[in-house]
Amino acid sequence: MRETETSDHLIATTASAYAYPLLVKQLLVNSLSVCADQEITYRGEQRYTFTGFRRRVGLLANALASRGVRAGSTVAVMDWDTHRYLESYFAIPMMGATIFTVNVRISAQQIAYTLNDAGAEVLIVNSDFLPIVEAIWPELKTVREVIVASDDDTRPAASLPITGEYEQLLATASADFAFEDFDENTRAAIFYTTGTTGDPKGVYYSHRQIVLHALATATTLCSPRTGQRLHRDDVYMPITPMFHVLAWGMPYIAVMLGLKIVLPGRYLPDLLLRLKQTERVTFSHCVPTVLQMLLDASAREQHDLSGWTMIIGGSALSPTLCRAALERGIDVFAGYGMSETGPIAALSQFAPDAEQAGIDESVRKRCMTGRPVPMVELRVVDDEMNDVRRDGQAQGEIVLRSPYLTQGYHNRPEASEALWAGGYLHTQDVAVMLPNGCVQIVDRMKDVIKTGGEWVSSIEIEALINAMQGVEESAVIGVRDERWGERPQALIVLRPQAVLEAQQVRAHLLGHADSKRISRYAVPEVERVIFVSDIPKTSVGKIDKKLLRQRFE
Amino acid sequence: MRETETSDHLIATTASAYAYPLLVKQLLVNSLSVCADQEITYRGEQRYTFTGFRRRVGLLANALASRGVRAGSTVAVMDWDTHRYLESYFAIPMMGATIFTVNVRISAQQIAYTLNDAGAEVLIVNSDFLPIVEAIWPELKTVREVIVASDDDTRPAASLPITGEYEQLLATASADFAFEDFDENTRAAIFYTTGTTGDPKGVYYSHRQIVLHALATATTLCSPRTGQRLHRDDVYMPITPMFHVLAWGMPYIAVMLGLKIVLPGRYLPDLLLRLKQTERVTFSHCVPTVLQMLLDASAREQHDLSGWTMIIGGSALSPTLCRAALERGIDVFAGYGMSETGPIAALSQFAPDAEQAGIDESVRKRCMTGRPVPMVELRVVDDEMNDVRRDGQAQGEIVLRSPYLTQGYHNRPEASEALWAGGYLHTQDVAVMLPNGCVQIVDRMKDVIKTGGEWVSSIEIEALINAMQGVEESAVIGVRDERWGERPQALIVLRPQAVLEAQQVRAHLLGHADSKRISRYAVPEVERVIFVSDIPKTSVGKIDKKLLRQRFE
Repeated sequence: MRETETSDHLIATTASAYAYPLLVKQLLVNSLSVCADQEITYRGEQRYTFTGFRRRVGLLANALASRGVRAGSTVAVMDWDTHRYLESYFAIPMMGATIFTVNVRISAQQIAYTLNDAGAEVLIVNSDFLPIVEAIWPELKTVREVIVASDDDTRPAASLPITGEYEQLLATASADFAFEDFDENTRAAIFYTTGTTGDPKGVYYSHRQIVLHALATATTLCSPRTGQRLHRDDVYMPITPMFHVLAWGMPYIAVMLGLKIVLPGRYLPDLLLRLKQTERVTFSHCVPTVLQMLLDASAREQHDLSGWTMIIGGSALSPTLCRAALERGIDVFAGYGMSETGPIAALSQFAPDAEQAGIDESVRKRCMTGRPVPMVELRVVDDEMNDVRRDGQAQGEIVLRSPYLTQGYHNRPEASEALWAGGYLHTQDVAVMLPNGCVQIVDRMKDVIKTGGEWVSSIEIEALINAMQGVEESAVIGVRDERWGERPQALIVLRPQAVLEAQQVRAHLLGHADSKRISRYAVPEVERVIFVSDIPKTSVGKIDKKLLRQRFE
Repeated sequence: MRETETSDHLIATTASAYAYPLLVKQLLVNSLSVCADQEITYRGEQRYTFTGFRRRVGLLANALASRGVRAGSTVAVMDWDTHRYLESYFAIPMMGATIFTVNVRISAQQIAYTLNDAGAEVLIVNSDFLPIVEAIWPELKTVREVIVASDDDTRPAASLPITGEYEQLLATASADFAFEDFDENTRAAIFYTTGTTGDPKGVYYSHRQIVLHALATATTLCSPRTGQRLHRDDVYMPITPMFHVLAWGMPYIAVMLGLKIVLPGRYLPDLLLRLKQTERVTFSHCVPTVLQMLLDASAREQHDLSGWTMIIGGSALSPTLCRAALERGIDVFAGYGMSETGPIAALSQFAPDAEQAGIDESVRKRCMTGRPVPMVELRVVDDEMNDVRRDGQAQGEIVLRSPYLTQGYHNRPEASEALWAGGYLHTQDVAVMLPNGCVQIVDRMKDVIKTGGEWVSSIEIEALINAMQGVEESAVIGVRDERWGERPQALIVLRPQAVLEAQQVRAHLLGHADSKRISRYAVPEVERVIFVSDIPKTSVGKIDKKLLRQRFE
């Protein structure tokens, strides 16, 4: 009854009215009108206007159509950050097809798995990645067309059935392609997230979600009075690969706002720094290790890095790195999100007056996980989905609602339901919330120690132990305990010649419990402080806590 | 076949996933989290936080529910710009009901017509407007509840069956109201546009449209590097009435961004200027006459107007007024839209370097009709819907597509189809477009003169005639002509003692045709230049061209 009533209250629409579905193509319409002459350049070597870009999007669509791509097809792309990738970001979804941005850094086996899982029919591949494709070719079950792309337009020797070269296909195509309207919930993009265990899982976004991410994120990025912001005169260069969560959706925002776009190809520090200078780049985003790499390279070459705004994501922005970047004139700040979240869920922008509180306060704020962007409902909840206290102490999991979260994992119904348990997307990130709504991640869900009804951050205890003289490194895990559920267990590697006893470690941590820095529950018993010769690591160099938990089970 | 195919390509959604409909309530969620202590003040006399605001939205919803308001109900509001109005902007749509913002400046008869046409069931009325409601009460067919609101919470003497007082109803209500999700295409608001002829026509917006207007407009307003912009530290005060096109949607944007909001009640120039000072207002919007009023009042009182950003809409921003405001330190610029368009379709923001070109260039740019905001497709087209040349000369009608245009007129199928003929919303505004996509309105469609296949702006010829010595005012209309379709006819009122002949007027205009300022078609023949003693005006003081056309038919 109620539902019938509600459906009567929808707005009436006249037959000729245009309903305006939110489609990727709509991000282009306005820019083509008011920024037609804006530039897009690939490494400063090739250069065309937005009008030229639109023309090539039409050429690409016709070229793909001639290779059998239709609405519903999946087209995989393996490329560096090229103008071709930007063309693919638009042409493929605008045809009603899905762009699959292949992560070229995972193993060849995983690439093969993802291509099969996504059902990719056509593969656009940079000639640099042909050896990978050749290696996995016998395993590919759905790819029927391979289009090779290279900067010099040559067809490299390859054992594959290459069905076309990118530029040659475009050269013989028409620029005229009628991009029709369709349902805004049509799938536009898919890519894979690689956890520490199991097969990669496909995450996907609709046209509506890409457009809403662009609008909400642009609003947030543009809205600060000064600092940590994007504006219409910025020159944008991605330094998060375009295969990685759609380069944080930023290319779509740059096109919507009509910004000059600089595509750097493969990330070579010297080239990136040169492009920063020659193309006057002012806005980028990257992971901490790339920022460190840029700082190192620029220190050697004395590059001027001032006037560069940079969002740091992927992993936490450390105060040390933040300070080093600030000292070089980079307006650096943290962003938060994951493959599943569009990705941008929070940004550590802050009110300009905080800047006057000095560099320590500025660094502290820039390194926060951030404050949620408009339209994002970000909660920090306990096991029963109750909000934890906003006191910067109480820990809980970050759960989200926003208009642009993946609605599941591709063909993984159980994982999809786990992701969305209770109607909120579970990030598996454990955080504290400040009274002002800012969040700070303290741990991953699987690493947090649940003891006596409290959540204890393993990372925080490790940091306190690591600060003790003589400690080389440490790892803290939760081990099962009948009375408390779990108890923290500390593994410590000492420096050569260092002498330290378990009792001293416990006393040190108890001191921090007295000063309320940590809970008393967080302090391991003396017998749970163990000295070891080394701590096992994963392939990417992180402490392998899964292995440690198994070992101490 | 094609359609079936497409529907197969929608994103898959897991059962527990939250789809996130775009609802007015979502504009509040994030602000309540990150700006909970932000202030909302009514005239500086009452003051509460965003948390307090949300509480009162809950109280109002329960109060209205107790008076029978349900999803689908229409609640009319007649009020000045009060905190109550802002509460109504949220509580009423969030219940699934429609807020009808009554234009209190039209005639009592028209108000009665609109209340009946909209089917308003409940009327919230400021006690100042009770006399109007008393006068039209016998004619009202659908209103069954009258809730009176006054600043001093007293129930004024009235012959109406008043069923409640705003504050008393809130005082006895619970703040707990579960605002459910519903279809984002549910109607949220309705109001009436009053043309020069016929009955007022109802224009309506869905939740989705209000949210998308907020996101797209906020993006535009926030995105300039400096100048003509909105930012997160702005203090917002509407000076376009909240009954007028939802105060340009700005209150929704202010809430979404968590801005401090100052509600000035009835517009009294001295109060507005005092609030600007005491509440540190930095962002407003108004019509040209209100800006003039503020400049006049501030000149008397020596108010400081610097640091005030102001969008001017409703009618054209004249260079004289623009310059006067700039000289007082107001960052003034034009906005373009109509009741039917959400409203904001274009803004005359420009790149900061234009500012360096001097005040004349700055004034010229600020007074342009503007450049379309992202997601808005703005075309200037001829009779066959072909785009006119982008040369600043060729004239055509502005037609629009955007995600937030009214999908019709309430219960007016024919007018709705005319509005949307050919799938674009027809603005009836005649404009020229510059190569950079900026538009400048030159006339209203019904006043433009179509002669020899060209469109001639009546306003432009009038301006050229008015610039001649001895001319008091002039009016130019199109009169039927067998050969040319129409020809311009000029009516001129001379100043006392002035002497001017038709031949001189023609020669003057031909000079402007020679310099390409106007087309030769725009120059009336000598016999079509007529001197008159006065020009008829409409009730709002505009030249009554409809009457003139009838007279010269």
